[in-house]
Amino acid sequence: MKVIMIGGVVVGPKVSARLRRLNSDAEITIIEKGTLLSYGACGLPLYVANLVPQLDGLMKTSYGVLRDTDFFQSQKNAKVLTQTEAIKIDRVNKKVLVRHVVTGVEETLDYDYLVLGTGAIPSIPPIPGVNLGQVFTLHRPQDAQALKEFIKAKKVKHVTVMGSGLIGIETADALSSPRLKVALCEAESQVLPKLLDADMAQLVERQMKLQGVDIRLSCRVKALEGDADGNVCRVQTEQGVIETEAVVIATGVRPEVGLAREAGLTIGITGAIQVDEHLMTNDPFIYAGGDCAEQRHLITGEPVYIPLASTANKQGRVIADHIMGISARYAPVEGTSVLQAFELNIGRTGLGEAEARKRGYNVVTSVSSGLDSTHYYPMHANITIKLIAEKEDGRLLGAQVCGLGDGVKRLDVLATALKFGAKVADLIDLDLAYAPPFATAIDVLIHAATTLENMRLGVAQGITVEAFLNRLQAGEKLCLLDVREPDEVAANPLSIEGTKVIALGELRERWEEVPKDSLVVTVCGLGIRGYDAACMLKGKGMNQVVFLQGGLSVANAYFDKI
Amino acid sequence: MKVIMIGGVVVGPKVSARLRRLNSDAEITIIEKGTLLSYGACGLPLYVANLVPQLDGLMKTSYGVLRDTDFFQSQKNAKVLTQTEAIKIDRVNKKVLVRHVVTGVEETLDYDYLVLGTGAIPSIPPIPGVNLGQVFTLHRPQDAQALKEFIKAKKVKHVTVMGSGLIGIETADALSSPRLKVALCEAESQVLPKLLDADMAQLVERQMKLQGVDIRLSCRVKALEGDADGNVCRVQTEQGVIETEAVVIATGVRPEVGLAREAGLTIGITGAIQVDEHLMTNDPFIYAGGDCAEQRHLITGEPVYIPLASTANKQGRVIADHIMGISARYAPVEGTSVLQAFELNIGRTGLGEAEARKRGYNVVTSVSSGLDSTHYYPMHANITIKLIAEKEDGRLLGAQVCGLGDGVKRLDVLATALKFGAKVADLIDLDLAYAPPFATAIDVLIHAATTLENMRLGVAQGITVEAFLNRLQAGEKLCLLDVREPDEVAANPLSIEGTKVIALGELRERWEEVPKDSLVVTVCGLGIRGYDAACMLKGKGMNQVVFLQGGLSVANAYFDKI
Ligand SMILES: Cc1cc2nc3c(=O)[nH]c(=O)nc-3n(C[C@H](O)[C@H](O)[C@H](O)COP(=O)(O)OP(=O)(O)OC[C@H]3O[C@@H](n4cnc5c(N)ncnc54)[C@H](O)[C@@H]3O)c2cc1C
Ligand SMILES: Cc1cc2nc3c(=O)[nH]c(=O)nc-3n(C[C@H](O)[C@H](O)[C@H](O)COP(=O)(O)OP(=O)(O)OC[C@H]3O[C@@H](n4cnc5c(N)ncnc54)[C@H](O)[C@@H]3O)c2cc1C
Ligand SMILES: CC(C)(COP(=O)(O)OP(=O)(O)OC[C@H]1O[C@@H](n2cnc3c(N)ncnc32)[C@H](O)[C@@H]1OP(=O)(O)O)[C@@H](O)C(=O)NCCC(=O)NCCS
Ligand SMILES: CC(C)(COP(=O)(O)OP(=O)(O)OC[C@H]1O[C@@H](n2cnc3c(N)ncnc32)[C@H](O)[C@@H]1OP(=O)(O)O)[C@@H](O)C(=O)NCCC(=O)NCCS
Ligand SMILES: [Ca+2]
Ligand SMILES: [Ca+2]
Repeated sequence: MKVIMIGGVVVGPKVSARLRRLNSDAEITIIEKGTLLSYGACGLPLYVANLVPQLDGLMKTSYGVLRDTDFFQSQKNAKVLTQTEAIKIDRVNKKVLVRHVVTGVEETLDYDYLVLGTGAIPSIPPIPGVNLGQVFTLHRPQDAQALKEFIKAKKVKHVTVMGSGLIGIETADALSSPRLKVALCEAESQVLPKLLDADMAQLVERQMKLQGVDIRLSCRVKALEGDADGNVCRVQTEQGVIETEAVVIATGVRPEVGLAREAGLTIGITGAIQVDEHLMTNDPFIYAGGDCAEQRHLITGEPVYIPLASTANKQGRVIADHIMGISARYAPVEGTSVLQAFELNIGRTGLGEAEARKRGYNVVTSVSSGLDSTHYYPMHANITIKLIAEKEDGRLLGAQVCGLGDGVKRLDVLATALKFGAKVADLIDLDLAYAPPFATAIDVLIHAATTLENMRLGVAQGITVEAFLNRLQAGEKLCLLDVREPDEVAANPLSIEGTKVIALGELRERWEEVPKDSLVVTVCGLGIRGYDAACMLKGKGMNQVVFLQGGLSVANAYFDKI
Repeated sequence: MKVIMIGGVVVGPKVSARLRRLNSDAEITIIEKGTLLSYGACGLPLYVANLVPQLDGLMKTSYGVLRDTDFFQSQKNAKVLTQTEAIKIDRVNKKVLVRHVVTGVEETLDYDYLVLGTGAIPSIPPIPGVNLGQVFTLHRPQDAQALKEFIKAKKVKHVTVMGSGLIGIETADALSSPRLKVALCEAESQVLPKLLDADMAQLVERQMKLQGVDIRLSCRVKALEGDADGNVCRVQTEQGVIETEAVVIATGVRPEVGLAREAGLTIGITGAIQVDEHLMTNDPFIYAGGDCAEQRHLITGEPVYIPLASTANKQGRVIADHIMGISARYAPVEGTSVLQAFELNIGRTGLGEAEARKRGYNVVTSVSSGLDSTHYYPMHANITIKLIAEKEDGRLLGAQVCGLGDGVKRLDVLATALKFGAKVADLIDLDLAYAPPFATAIDVLIHAATTLENMRLGVAQGITVEAFLNRLQAGEKLCLLDVREPDEVAANPLSIEGTKVIALGELRERWEEVPKDSLVVTVCGLGIRGYDAACMLKGKGMNQVVFLQGGLSVANAYFDKI
């Protein structure tokens, strides 16, 4: 059996490795037009940030062996042709035409099964100046090397990043330092527009600003302009000009599907190669996976294009199994994504609120904050969790996390629960691990779930910071009731007009001081005391009381601005 | 409505807090025979270890307010009677007789609903000497304070801990330091006998020994002996005498059920109060939760006694809801437990292998090790995961984790998957969050699952270290094939007779050097290369090849001894 992989980064190597373990005889060939193999592109921002000192650290196994041509030959008995481009697939005769990129020599290879792992390429916006010098992307190891060397050599003090997706934010974090100012231009009105809802994105934006990033939202770049040497020196945007020494374009990637399209393979509505649950294309002898292929979304059932290394690896294993006649199938995805940037752990799974509403779901959400471990444990930090669920039965649709604390544990739990069709009420029952270093006795995720259920079932009424500000800006008279302790208030006093300060511990005695003629919005640090205060006031017969969801840990990101 | 709680630590306060939010009129009373309320007993080892400087840190809210009588009065409008013992329940007339422990004054209180949160007390073995001076338990804040003050005042250099359950191990860790030697006596043949299978316990034992603990297994304490002042100075064990300056008894807790039994409430076969899914006792006006009550196990359906603060808090919420007529039910538990000790993160969920076998399950297990994040990320560490599943269909029964790395994230995911009846194959599909700081592209948990499935489906044959050593000790000729890199071998060479060293990268060429006349056991650092090597050799037609599960990260705990 002859199996050919096109693309040598994740899918090709993973199929090869698994296939070899299942079959000692198969002739396995990996075709890669570049020079490098099997690298961790996900680590490139760490390399730029000097957290990974050497590029080949991203191409080594954990025991220090370079995954080069020799590695695949000796360990996986796979033949690797680097600097070799596949230029045509002859499906009828099951042949691939390849051309050596240096010598131009062409050759035809036979296959029984073909695996497309051609990946993605950066999507470059059609604006003037993208070909100037010092305009970078961050896609391949060479890109990262060029960027890093240039910054070091020229002692660069200003870089503009275009795009605030996962890679744009990670790059901004990697570059930004007291010695190097980063400007970030994003055409949408928020950062991470594909990852987070606008409210959660605010938390990221606030932290980035605190760390000195010059964020420009709703700011499409119109052109890049160069100096006499043909190097970029200026960015023309919808919001004016940015003087800069380099530009990193991080405006997304698009699937590399030219070869597939030309061979008559079906391209899906996402623009990536359409595959069935076995990752088979419309040709039963050709599979596709990784960044060149579509996936199916678990919640919507729709085809989606969510190119990630985690899913690419899993797909590789399924493809190898299916080629070997094992009835493997690749499960629909939830689009779980995560990044660490500006000290924040940021992630999402499932549908966002905006996505869910657009699809017509009757949505209920909660935004709540809490600690990732007990406050008396020396290391603990905040997490904000947003849950998105169906109103009628509380079925979980998605979740987002952001914070300095360990939100990724909660994200993985939520991704797991989502997989099994959990309702929010099921989350309340989860028997999660508790000891003081790891969680609070009721985990912050369970608090998020009870918070949502309390609102869904009418035990509590919460208001989002956005809704609160909208009503305030519409001229409505609102009373913000700050129930924090005096020391907390002194450290971060609220400047919104009409704010009344009564610590929770005094509220039961002093509740009559609270105005009765307007909506009362109770606020505290995380949301929990605000909730308790709202319950207390409702117990006193006040009906116009809501608590501010997430408390100041969310509201600070907004209040700073007003 | 009058609701009385007996016990003021977790269940009583949580029921009170939730009930108050649902009902502003209820008369809520908490009866507590001690002086302290609402404290984090789980943090006591941290206090002993000086990680929590002040005891009242364990009784404060995260915003710094002490949860004392005033707190419950002002914030929850709950009346608290401390130093007041409930001594009799009159179910017919719905009255509780209480007695003030200082004044002896008695009083009768009416209730509509009664909540038993009487908790647990340390179970003291019936041996001579337990009442000597300097014999401690670690149950209440006062215990921790006494222990800590004594150790500081007397510059104690040797303490003996009896019992290696969660509290015994946490206490041993809290005390042990270069200046203070801890001896740990455990009657069973392993540490953490209720938490871990013997193989996983080995990992803990190894680390404890490396950190200087004098572990004595299968070592029942026969008596404590005192000096002339009546202070303990010697421990008589089945394995001889230990000279010591103090003893901490940590041989488990037993539910405090005297009051309930006397009132004719049903006590279950675990010795704790029997409750239904609403946490109602056999008296519909009396609920019980926390450490005095039984729970039901998710997998076996059996009643179990697993006293934990996490579940006690959740139960409190359910009890309050049910009293208020909300149809809340408390879900069966998985016994998820976790601790951090000797730098290890240790935990379990569901059934252990031994427990599952005892109950007649046809069990398959995997033990595998891997990294918690990418090896090139500056912070990464090992985790060993044991999965326990049913052989036929791969349904997950339980899991255990141990390592320096973040195993607790994986444990929570496993606890969540278990809740939904996951099969191991479902774990392979999980769409977990991946970026280099948080995981490897295929998460270590997914690797654990594929490892199990590979063995269950016959793709790979693994051998546990125990089985390997048993066969070796039975005189069988075995070839240990070490496929690590030369630098790894040099740093930690194997001394087992018949070990052959061929790095994985050379094995395909040099495979004929491998002996054909005995079982070949391939070994590497974590298990993954051993698996790859075994596949390679089987591809060469060798059938007698197995890989050593978990590699040296597990085997080191055993090999050290031989
Ligand atoms: C900066 C950065 C950060 C990232 N961070 C994360 C992260 O945190 N988490 C995550 O899950 N993912 C992350 N990703 C995405 C991840 O790297 C990709 O999903 C993964 O590399 C996809 O692998 P692939 O094999 O499908 O394709 P690619 O990595 O794109 O590789 C495809 C290969 O195919 C070759 N090729 C294409 N056409 C041909 C042809 N005709 N002939 C021969 N060779 C061909 C290309 O040269 C290329 O080397 C990140 C990516 C980048 C760039
Ligand atoms: C050192 C230590 C570490 C721990 N670590 C963890 C951990 O990491 N994770 C975890 O989940 N759990 C842990 N636990 C367990 C956790 O502390 C208990 O599960 C929890 O405290 C149980 O709460 P409870 O309210 O049911 O009972 P308790 O905390 O036992 O409180 C019961 C109270 O009732 C009072 N009482 C009893 N009878 C009467 C009466 N007749 N009249 C009046 N009052 C009465 C008692 O005085 C006592 O104060 C740990 C416990 C200890 C001691
Ligand atoms: C590394 C690569 C070549 C795949 O090779 P691989 O040998 O399949 O390695 P993996 O780590 O993926 O898989 C490990 C295998 O060992 C098994 N395994 C993992 N841990 C194990 C353990 N402790 N004991 C036994 N087996 C173990 C797994 O089940 C898996 O086998 P399977 O696929 O046959 O079930 C491919 O993933 C690759 O090229 N990656 C490039 C890096 C990358 O992923 N980049 C993008 C992210 S930054
Ligand atoms: C603290 C104690 C009195 C309970 O009081 P509580 O007010 O119910 O506090 P909790 O933190 O448990 O619950 C928080 C409440 O706020 C809600 N909440 C949590 N975070 C929230 C947020 N960010 N926004 C809004 N609501 C939030 C929760 O839903 C919960 O309300 P509910 O029970 O009505 O659904 C009780 O748990 C106790 O005494 N604990 C002692 C410490 C302990 O647990 N010891 C053992 C472990 S070491
Ligand atoms: Ca930075
Ligand atoms: Ca210690």
